[in-house]
Amino acid sequence: MNILITAGGTSERIDDVRAITNHSTGALGQALAHAWLADPTCHIDYVTTKTAKQPEDNARITRHIIEGTDDLAHTLHRLLLTKTFDAVIHSMAVSDFTPAASFSESAFFHALNQALPDFGHQVSPALIEQVLATHDPEAGKISSDTDHLFVVLEKTPKVIQIIKQLQPGTLLVGFKLLTDVSKETLFEVAQSSLRKSQADYVLANDLQQIDGTQHIGYLLNQSGEVGQGKTKAELAALIVTTLQQDLQHIQPSK
Amino acid sequence: MNILITAGGTSERIDDVRAITNHSTGALGQALAHAWLADPTCHIDYVTTKTAKQPEDNARITRHIIEGTDDLAHTLHRLLLTKTFDAVIHSMAVSDFTPAASFSESAFFHALNQALPDFGHQVSPALIEQVLATHDPEAGKISSDTDHLFVVLEKTPKVIQIIKQLQPGTLLVGFKLLTDVSKETLFEVAQSSLRKSQADYVLANDLQQIDGTQHIGYLLNQSGEVGQGKTKAELAALIVTTLQQDLQHIQPSK
Repeated sequence: MNILITAGGTSERIDDVRAITNHSTGALGQALAHAWLADPTCHIDYVTTKTAKQPEDNARITRHIIEGTDDLAHTLHRLLLTKTFDAVIHSMAVSDFTPAASFSESAFFHALNQALPDFGHQVSPALIEQVLATHDPEAGKISSDTDHLFVVLEKTPKVIQIIKQLQPGTLLVGFKLLTDVSKETLFEVAQSSLRKSQADYVLANDLQQIDGTQHIGYLLNQSGEVGQGKTKAELAALIVTTLQQDLQHIQPSK
Repeated sequence: MNILITAGGTSERIDDVRAITNHSTGALGQALAHAWLADPTCHIDYVTTKTAKQPEDNARITRHIIEGTDDLAHTLHRLLLTKTFDAVIHSMAVSDFTPAASFSESAFFHALNQALPDFGHQVSPALIEQVLATHDPEAGKISSDTDHLFVVLEKTPKVIQIIKQLQPGTLLVGFKLLTDVSKETLFEVAQSSLRKSQADYVLANDLQQIDGTQHIGYLLNQSGEVGQGKTKAELAALIVTTLQQDLQHIQPSK
């Protein structure tokens, strides 16, 4: 059995020394790997970051270290094109945005003021596109000799959508983390993301309910709640058990 | 003997899940701690981050975990007001900027377009101050439902300046990291930062000369180069030896 797990948080480079990081300890991914290893037929490809918590070394785990969303997309592409996975659990906290350009105060004002007359003195998406297009990327570390720094971030492609595009037959678990919302909103948003990514399941959780050893989460499919857990170990067991049942159902010979 | 070491990189919160991090593995701080421990009279207060490499556990190391520059400033204040340090080695990569405000595309355009008529349709520092002052900080995680995200960063106070202000008698080593500059420029900028922070020494290094085990650095004082090293272990030994000689000189009885 081949399992693909992503865990930890991506890190998007602003310059040589600064990055925008997505906070995730990787502890749930670690728990997932340990839960899968209980099955001796299971091999895990584990996509993670340098700073994330790691599962124990094991001959049945192949580790792939990534940094940014670009890196993650390439690695998933490569893995999904070379190997068939029974299930993919995409627990990595992937940055929704990546720096498109960074400006010192004077460079940003200059670029905006240059563009404003062409756009009726109104800041608009088209104006920003022009500012970004004419932006001369400063190599290396941005000088700290400016009162403000302006970082313009652009949306990253939704990496999770690669998975079912390349392997429609794999079982896919996505994750949706919101903060301080009602359970109804959490479920709605999570199920909408499940549909967009064609995931079979989505683990919905709220940052306000994650603290120390507590980690409340709900496993949903298209029809509703499949189960819930109160710790990372419970959530890992819930996900692994649910997928194992599905996999036995799909492949009764195994 | 009391030594204070800072190591690792600060992390500045954008929202509940995103942060701007300053890349630093903390490996040089780790090497410094190990080099100081060879002196059995030495006690180390070690200010570090959760993700930095750590020196081995030792009864003579007291660890203080920080996240952002605010946090770092408070911790240094507290330590410097309660204890006298023979030397402070400030190797932490401290963020020069911290997020002042984050805007979705529509919120940023709206705020700029509202302010522009009051400022003669010119983007200026005063206009940005007004935009920031009227900014309604969105709590929690910023919605990803926007094409661009605009993060405005503002300068952080220079934490290193606290050190000599609170303990003029301590020996202070600062660090200056530049990228891809000439040795002359590196020395000039490093010595200027030494003067501003009233440091006794500054370790000047260039990101282009740090790779794997290689870490080229120059220890400078006000008069010029004191020594150089080609690895983190060499640099740690150079710093510790130099400070030990100075400390013997200051306190011949010890």
